Amino acid sequence: MSDPLHSLTLGEILEEHRRARPQQPAVIGEGLRLSYPALANRVQRLANALEDAGVRHGDRVLWLAQNHPGVLEGLIACGQLGAMFCPVNWRQTADELAFVIDDLEPTLVVWQEAEIGDAVRAARERAQHQGARWLPLDGPDGWDRFIADAPPEPRQRTADSNDPVLVIYTAAFGGRPNGAMLSQRAIAWQDLALIDIQDLSTDTRFLNSGPLFHVGTLMVTLAVFHIGGTNVFIRRTDPAAMARLIHDERCTYAFLMHSTCTDLAALNSDRRYDFSSLRTASVSPEWDAMVQVQDARNLFGYGQTELMGPVTWSYYGWGANLGRNGRSGPVAQLRILDDTGSEVPTGETGEICVRGPTVMNGYWRRPALNAQRQRDGWHRTNDLGRREPDGSLSFIGPKLQMIKSGAENIYPAEVEGCLKQHEAVADCAVIGVPDAQWVQSVKAIVVLKPGAPADAAVLIEHCRARIASYKKPRHVEFVDALPRDASGRPDYKALDAAFGGGGYPGGETRGA
Amino acid sequence: MSDPLHSLTLGEILEEHRRARPQQPAVIGEGLRLSYPALANRVQRLANALEDAGVRHGDRVLWLAQNHPGVLEGLIACGQLGAMFCPVNWRQTADELAFVIDDLEPTLVVWQEAEIGDAVRAARERAQHQGARWLPLDGPDGWDRFIADAPPEPRQRTADSNDPVLVIYTAAFGGRPNGAMLSQRAIAWQDLALIDIQDLSTDTRFLNSGPLFHVGTLMVTLAVFHIGGTNVFIRRTDPAAMARLIHDERCTYAFLMHSTCTDLAALNSDRRYDFSSLRTASVSPEWDAMVQVQDARNLFGYGQTELMGPVTWSYYGWGANLGRNGRSGPVAQLRILDDTGSEVPTGETGEICVRGPTVMNGYWRRPALNAQRQRDGWHRTNDLGRREPDGSLSFIGPKLQMIKSGAENIYPAEVEGCLKQHEAVADCAVIGVPDAQWVQSVKAIVVLKPGAPADAAVLIEHCRARIASYKKPRHVEFVDALPRDASGRPDYKALDAAFGGGGYPGGETRGA
Repeated sequence: MSDPLHSLTLGEILEEHRRARPQQPAVIGEGLRLSYPALANRVQRLANALEDAGVRHGDRVLWLAQNHPGVLEGLIACGQLGAMFCPVNWRQTADELAFVIDDLEPTLVVWQEAEIGDAVRAARERAQHQGARWLPLDGPDGWDRFIADAPPEPRQRTADSNDPVLVIYTAAFGGRPNGAMLSQRAIAWQDLALIDIQDLSTDTRFLNSGPLFHVGTLMVTLAVFHIGGTNVFIRRTDPAAMARLIHDERCTYAFLMHSTCTDLAALNSDRRYDFSSLRTASVSPEWDAMVQVQDARNLFGYGQTELMGPVTWSYYGWGANLGRNGRSGPVAQLRILDDTGSEVPTGETGEICVRGPTVMNGYWRRPALNAQRQRDGWHRTNDLGRREPDGSLSFIGPKLQMIKSGAENIYPAEVEGCLKQHEAVADCAVIGVPDAQWVQSVKAIVVLKPGAPADAAVLIEHCRARIASYKKPRHVEFVDALPRDASGRPDYKALDAAFGGGGYPGGETRGA
Repeated sequence: MSDPLHSLTLGEILEEHRRARPQQPAVIGEGLRLSYPALANRVQRLANALEDAGVRHGDRVLWLAQNHPGVLEGLIACGQLGAMFCPVNWRQTADELAFVIDDLEPTLVVWQEAEIGDAVRAARERAQHQGARWLPLDGPDGWDRFIADAPPEPRQRTADSNDPVLVIYTAAFGGRPNGAMLSQRAIAWQDLALIDIQDLSTDTRFLNSGPLFHVGTLMVTLAVFHIGGTNVFIRRTDPAAMARLIHDERCTYAFLMHSTCTDLAALNSDRRYDFSSLRTASVSPEWDAMVQVQDARNLFGYGQTELMGPVTWSYYGWGANLGRNGRSGPVAQLRILDDTGSEVPTGETGEICVRGPTVMNGYWRRPALNAQRQRDGWHRTNDLGRREPDGSLSFIGPKLQMIKSGAENIYPAEVEGCLKQHEAVADCAVIGVPDAQWVQSVKAIVVLKPGAPADAAVLIEHCRARIASYKKPRHVEFVDALPRDASGRPDYKALDAAFGGGGYPGGETRGA
């Protein structure tokens, strides 16, 4: 239910910035330099444009394009209408994009010609859903015209910040992705956590150099917006363009993979660009000499799209900080539960479950999956984790299907994690094989490091010494490489077929 | 409506700390040293004890005692029951306390014998409401026993964080105070803002040396709790006891008035105590040499009890920062509205109005006042303010009743603020006197600085040059001192009687 007195929507945050930060730059990119009042004016028009294009409460707008200020504008405007905005992974195939179009059934699709036009057109043709208006991002009849043609007057609207506003497709456990629906409430709470953890302020100038269809970049964009900083947009990761923007706009922060830093350092070996405004993690002596190297404590945690990003952070470490993924922050509760919903003791592995204002509302159009993943008021992450004695979290791995030995559950990710700690092991996967006495037993498929000896007994003893004995492999097979599925995970179906896997709980092979 | 999946109550924050921060000290004081798990166990028992004592959803618990860990414990436990906890100003007279008892009609009263026992007993006798159970804070049958005797098992409860959990009496504009009801949502959002602004962390050790019946101290207590820091409790401001606690417990932060710092510095002139853990504002060379002097940017803003504390902060300054009260933070929206509810232009004075998750739910049992103060989804603060051209806020003064000149509204606080800027003026108050032509005209009652000349024309010209001409005083009277009411404000009724005030809008004298 809408509660205006206690409301804090993205649109309201923007209207506050209009008044409190009238001279502050909000958005830079695509030839635009927008102050907060200018951004507020554009979003006001955009909300009217969307409404006049038929976008109503609960409707969807699909962003089939790369990074652009329009992602921020579209999200805020959709929030005012109670509609949902979906920035989709533009690297997908036409078939995958068509699936999203048919699943989301958008009222409006904003699409980009450059680089992805062919895939977009093929997806549009292939999709069953033909009811959308297709708006080109670029050109004379594109996004800017769509905004400029709309009436500027604000219209009276009341949005409920608990309604979903953002859809991000993820969690393709069943082979096809599911759209996680996140609310304005989830965004605002995560903003507040990030503002503290990442030390964001009006002085922050964030280069949006990671993909905005991924929560890892988008959550920072939104937190920078919330605190009144400046977002600098670039369509995609492009070291030459990034170098110019960091230099010209004095960017203080950016989404940077290790390899991008290496590229940027090489590109700037003659120091033609000044990167001294940028705070980043330590990467290499060459890179570190160009930037401000920051304490790495805020750079890792555990999270997922369904949680609007991380819920634990190494930032919240103190004492021994045994867990590799830090501690829960101030906006989420976390429990390690077994399959019956009971909490497992400290040091034991179970499913990471989360409750709190940043949890998604559910997956779009997946009532059965939502009922299963959100039962008893806890979001099941499908990930395994462990509370360490100091209260910190160790993420063990994705849950997938269990192996059963007698009455005991064995989580392959845990056995794999143990094997990978052995110096001879380069890679491995664990499957369950039928066992007349124990239902199943554990078989490890191992890739050795170059020159390492193939000694099954040594690896089995390594596990026996580190995890409960019933979890240790009884069989080890050595291979040159593991088969992998499209997402890069080991292909367990292929491994089961090749190495005799079977007898899993529920009677099926383990699946992806 | 309760929404467990997205819930974040005080009790849930505590249960998360139990798991994530098992060795962290939560509470020190009254001979207690409680880790977060130990605090969680006490609160679990306390919620059961309150429930077994008849405290139900919507019921009130009155804390008629000084600072104590029980304020934190009681607030969290009441939150789990959907009940309200009211820490009342224990400095009040028996008559004032009796008013609160009758207004709040608590189910349980926790009361203290030391220092205030006589007033409490007199209030209990005088009150009409005789239905409460009275629990002594101290002694063998006190608070600790009440907790220890309760069953330890957690009970299944679902709390709605939007329900009120905290009542603080304030806003005695009409002569009697009103109980501002604040929700767990309001507390949690303000916590997040404070964690960033005041740099709170698990390393924070906060000395609760200000009164916990005041939002200025209590909001910090709660934010320190939320981020998993340590709260150190002391019954009241007592420099000798404070010095020992700062030294022994390595307190990093404390609620400190200027005079308390001076007392502490004098008391520690021989450096017997080590205050080097403490971060405070600069006070004097003696004091500054004992502590860590911190940047003063986070130390002022604009707020009120009804908003769970400040909503603007000097922390959010940049550029010229003209406004004396900084900029709105990330958890509230602020508008300067006229009496018709329209926004006034930048630079003009109007009522400060606020919307957002930290706004109170309303005053306890004041439906007419709530309808007036919360109309159109904005909380009317009863305070006057002005947006400066850079977006920052200047707080002008309390609104009180207006003076009417022709069709124009004149806010006395604004005229007084202007007069006080003159070097000859030590103090002043402004009243309205009947005017045959203009309804009312402005009269200033002025206390001059020693030796300053009594020149009415100069003061009138000073105002004419600085505020709209119709607002300037037409008459000036000079006095040795202003009459003041119990709260220390100028006694306008007495001034009206002495200096011919009257003809106010509504036909009454201006009142308090």
